[in-house]
Amino acid sequence: MEEFDAIARYFAPLASPGGLGLQDDAALLSPSSDKELVLTTDTIIESVHFLPDTAPEDIAWKLLGVNVSDLAAMGAMPLHYLLALTLPRGSKENWLQRFSTGLKDGMVAYGGSLLGGDTTSHNGAFVLTLTAIGEVPRGQALQRKGAAVGDAVFVSGIIGESYLGLNHPTSPYLQRYLRPTPRIALGQALRGIASACADVSDGLVADVGHIACASGVSISLNLQEIPLPVEAKALGIPATDLITAGDDYELVFTVPSSRVAALEAKQLPVTRIGAVVAGSGVTVYDTAGQPVILAKKGWVHG
Amino acid sequence: MEEFDAIARYFAPLASPGGLGLQDDAALLSPSSDKELVLTTDTIIESVHFLPDTAPEDIAWKLLGVNVSDLAAMGAMPLHYLLALTLPRGSKENWLQRFSTGLKDGMVAYGGSLLGGDTTSHNGAFVLTLTAIGEVPRGQALQRKGAAVGDAVFVSGIIGESYLGLNHPTSPYLQRYLRPTPRIALGQALRGIASACADVSDGLVADVGHIACASGVSISLNLQEIPLPVEAKALGIPATDLITAGDDYELVFTVPSSRVAALEAKQLPVTRIGAVVAGSGVTVYDTAGQPVILAKKGWVHG
Repeated sequence: MEEFDAIARYFAPLASPGGLGLQDDAALLSPSSDKELVLTTDTIIESVHFLPDTAPEDIAWKLLGVNVSDLAAMGAMPLHYLLALTLPRGSKENWLQRFSTGLKDGMVAYGGSLLGGDTTSHNGAFVLTLTAIGEVPRGQALQRKGAAVGDAVFVSGIIGESYLGLNHPTSPYLQRYLRPTPRIALGQALRGIASACADVSDGLVADVGHIACASGVSISLNLQEIPLPVEAKALGIPATDLITAGDDYELVFTVPSSRVAALEAKQLPVTRIGAVVAGSGVTVYDTAGQPVILAKKGWVHG
Repeated sequence: MEEFDAIARYFAPLASPGGLGLQDDAALLSPSSDKELVLTTDTIIESVHFLPDTAPEDIAWKLLGVNVSDLAAMGAMPLHYLLALTLPRGSKENWLQRFSTGLKDGMVAYGGSLLGGDTTSHNGAFVLTLTAIGEVPRGQALQRKGAAVGDAVFVSGIIGESYLGLNHPTSPYLQRYLRPTPRIALGQALRGIASACADVSDGLVADVGHIACASGVSISLNLQEIPLPVEAKALGIPATDLITAGDDYELVFTVPSSRVAALEAKQLPVTRIGAVVAGSGVTVYDTAGQPVILAKKGWVHG
């Protein structure tokens, strides 16, 4: 299986016009002058970020999803992707075919098209890198910095569904783990409202910590207000596991008190879970108002 | 060694302002309205594209060089880089430090700054992906397509120095292999002159073949006109090895006869090596005017 054959067969049909049919050394992009580009790159690796028996279609969705979620966190609309695939030597053409099918379906769901890439092989596992490019009106990108003392903290969706799906595959949440649903529309709706934003990929507490660190503030969360799956209690899963597990791909964000009414008027699927206070770090409080001891804060990158 | 520590220590100092201190989910880029962006991504892998004992500084140069060469081939100026590093588990911090030193020196030489990235580790070899972003005045990017029958074919530099450096490390050419010198200024000088252009990464014959294929033409090369290292004959290295070896990172390009005088007036370090003719594929002719039989055309991606 030669690189050029595979590119022509499976990836050229997914290319945007700027991809030049994926035949060229590089791709072209003509940006709008009233927009800023948002760029991110993330790698997922077999046996680290996905299991060896994961369906190639699901791997493609996940690779897209983790990157698109970073665009969503900045309020950006996905435009384009560059794909760097390192495959185990001797990979079957069938794997690429199925992967490209998942990629196509994911791009239909999330938006954006393929601009270019590189395919390599080695005596090792799948190492899959995507670079995602989105756009946002100039000056309106959400960032991790910007949270101020007195801001309210909100999170979208329900935290821990993906963790339930991974650890209890018979639960209805396996798809939440396999095929993340980045909050693209929500991120765009939060432009002009949120003072800071991050996606929940490393674990709620860790990602709230990123906002606190970048903003130079402390954030307090109330455990009882964090939306968790109702099934967790019956399965004996402690809340502290759910808020440190990661792979949620929800958005966590801060809102100045002056804009909370504007947020609520939008009737978005978000829940108020805490407040920005002076200091540093993240503290989670239980119903008695006592700080909860967390064995780990979240996913350590590796 | 945690990801965030390493990023802060070694890569944040290399970041451009749009990289947001590498603290955010993604990076911001404000493009000029009179420019197009040129994007490319390439992966290099331990034991595939570089030897396990290669110095980390040289690996960084190579990773930058192979990507910047793709920008040069389109006549673009390097602006920004996104770095996706997959490291063997247990990699020493010293490796990252030395790699980041090489990256910094390479970025000074080639231009451009770091916009973001991702660091992961696994039980396997180094898998290093860079996405490079350049810019070109709108509508002026060089492409592989555009060569027309009657155009002259030129190549920059000397073909095969890198191959000599790899196979005869005592030759003066080891640095040509370790630290490619992408022809960034040349690519920009060729805007408005070349009808098609590619960089020589897979091997001269293979890369000329990419132009022929994308342009729907055939290209004839005269072996005696291709500039080769004078040492090759004494070392017993056949010319056919040199023109199919790759890793040269020179530019090969076509020029309409009406613009050859304009090219020559620029006094660039380039040599006329052939002509565009009707048909398809590449034919190399010897001094007797007979087609040369090539055992292989160039590097098969793998």
